[in-house]
Amino acid sequence: MTQADWIAVDWGTSHLRAWAMGPGGAVLGKAESADGMGGLRPAEFEPALLRLVESWLGTGTTPVIACGMVGAKQGWAEAPYRPVPCKPGAATPIAPNVTDPRIALHILPGISQDSPADVMRGEETQVAGILYETPQFVGIACLPGTHTKWVHVSAEEIVSFRTAMTGELFGLLSDHSVLRHSVGGDDLDGDAFDVGVDESLSRPERLAQALFTIRAEGLLHGQTAAAARGRLSGLLIGAELAATRPYWLGQQVLIGGAPALAALYARALQTQGVRCVTRDATALTLAGLALTHAKLTEVS
Amino acid sequence: MTQADWIAVDWGTSHLRAWAMGPGGAVLGKAESADGMGGLRPAEFEPALLRLVESWLGTGTTPVIACGMVGAKQGWAEAPYRPVPCKPGAATPIAPNVTDPRIALHILPGISQDSPADVMRGEETQVAGILYETPQFVGIACLPGTHTKWVHVSAEEIVSFRTAMTGELFGLLSDHSVLRHSVGGDDLDGDAFDVGVDESLSRPERLAQALFTIRAEGLLHGQTAAAARGRLSGLLIGAELAATRPYWLGQQVLIGGAPALAALYARALQTQGVRCVTRDATALTLAGLALTHAKLTEVS
Repeated sequence: MTQADWIAVDWGTSHLRAWAMGPGGAVLGKAESADGMGGLRPAEFEPALLRLVESWLGTGTTPVIACGMVGAKQGWAEAPYRPVPCKPGAATPIAPNVTDPRIALHILPGISQDSPADVMRGEETQVAGILYETPQFVGIACLPGTHTKWVHVSAEEIVSFRTAMTGELFGLLSDHSVLRHSVGGDDLDGDAFDVGVDESLSRPERLAQALFTIRAEGLLHGQTAAAARGRLSGLLIGAELAATRPYWLGQQVLIGGAPALAALYARALQTQGVRCVTRDATALTLAGLALTHAKLTEVS
Repeated sequence: MTQADWIAVDWGTSHLRAWAMGPGGAVLGKAESADGMGGLRPAEFEPALLRLVESWLGTGTTPVIACGMVGAKQGWAEAPYRPVPCKPGAATPIAPNVTDPRIALHILPGISQDSPADVMRGEETQVAGILYETPQFVGIACLPGTHTKWVHVSAEEIVSFRTAMTGELFGLLSDHSVLRHSVGGDDLDGDAFDVGVDESLSRPERLAQALFTIRAEGLLHGQTAAAARGRLSGLLIGAELAATRPYWLGQQVLIGGAPALAALYARALQTQGVRCVTRDATALTLAGLALTHAKLTEVS
């Protein structure tokens, strides 16, 4: 039976993921559920967490360190945003009261930007992880997911950031719009992806009509589902790159995301001559949470 | 009890609308249901229609003239696309067999464009209506709805057209994305709409990140739901205008849509110095169907 030194938690809007952590950052176990913050009332957070991690608890008190939407106003307890510029690794988590004496809860705050208005909850912990692994990191972190974050890091601080809703748009268009008839399946044609990226980067103002062309090409010219899916993904990622050009132009970019998605962003950026390295987002989140755990341990 | 000379039908993906037509284009009755083409198998179309119009039928045979997705491959019977350029008022409807001898069914074909690939089903009948009312009409018709059609009309022909998925995007983003928390209700702030239109027209490449700013402005700066809704609508209609600039620049535009939506498009176009007239889309559809009825009557 696994007993955790501490428990790492990434609690987003639609998913809850937890890891049993051992000495030296070893991952002893992992678990996840669909108990995302979006579906829970305040009193339901603790039971949802215990269902997932109870088997990792011993007789003493186990620290739980959480990031993500769990700290939003509608979450378990609000961890107010820290404004940029700020050091992502220097956040002080809030420590809300819990009922079960076997856990000590710590929730990391998100980060806000006044102008242009923007917010993040969870990705700041990935940036903390980047800096934990590579303290001298300076440059751009691109963190794709439901909402992609583009983060400018300098002198160990998050200087500025922007959010693009690309992943959410892709999901809505491919599952719920008229395009769902065209983009079925999971296959994605790389050539069609490249065409879509180029189309959006060279004529970003045409996105509104380029999208429907995917439907019409399927009806009139026998375009395959994989080509349609590739073009849709390329058009949307290309539109994001058009919007974020000041972030990546002439820069080196660290892409932190799920491997398949990070690879698509790298492919798109490389067509623009941008040098990229990719890192798995989960590893970055765990590194960021481990940094907080190390600091809490020092203090106590 | 109403008895129709003929029955006009606009049968889209999600709705079925029918009108009992009398002498001289008089509308004697109307009815609608949620039996859209998207939810029906081929054998279910005739019962769905009869449920709606049965009370308008007499002892003889009543012509039913239909346009829209009912003529798609997945519809009641396929009315193959006519390629542009073509006269929208010169379409020959297909006449599929029906079971009930009290109706004679006619379905109008849609229109296709080879390059850029595009299709329409239903809006060509609105254009036929424009030309029926104003035979000398030359210029641009903008037909906003779930999918907005921009149509170049010259010499009584549809010369070219483009589709923007603006209405569908607005629905998905305001009902199903993270922005649903920000844009609740039906109120729309006109000033915020104008700001959104200007933002998209002047920096169309920034759309991907402008959308999330709506969420962040609500969280950080107390933006009202009406302002959020106005900005979202303005950003998306502005993006559509950026994509369709070759259609409207220096042109007079006839906007045919539901009155509130047509007014928004007119407001956006007028900020660009474009002179617009607006017409109710239903009146245009009925005029286009009446034209077909008149031609069928001449022939027989």
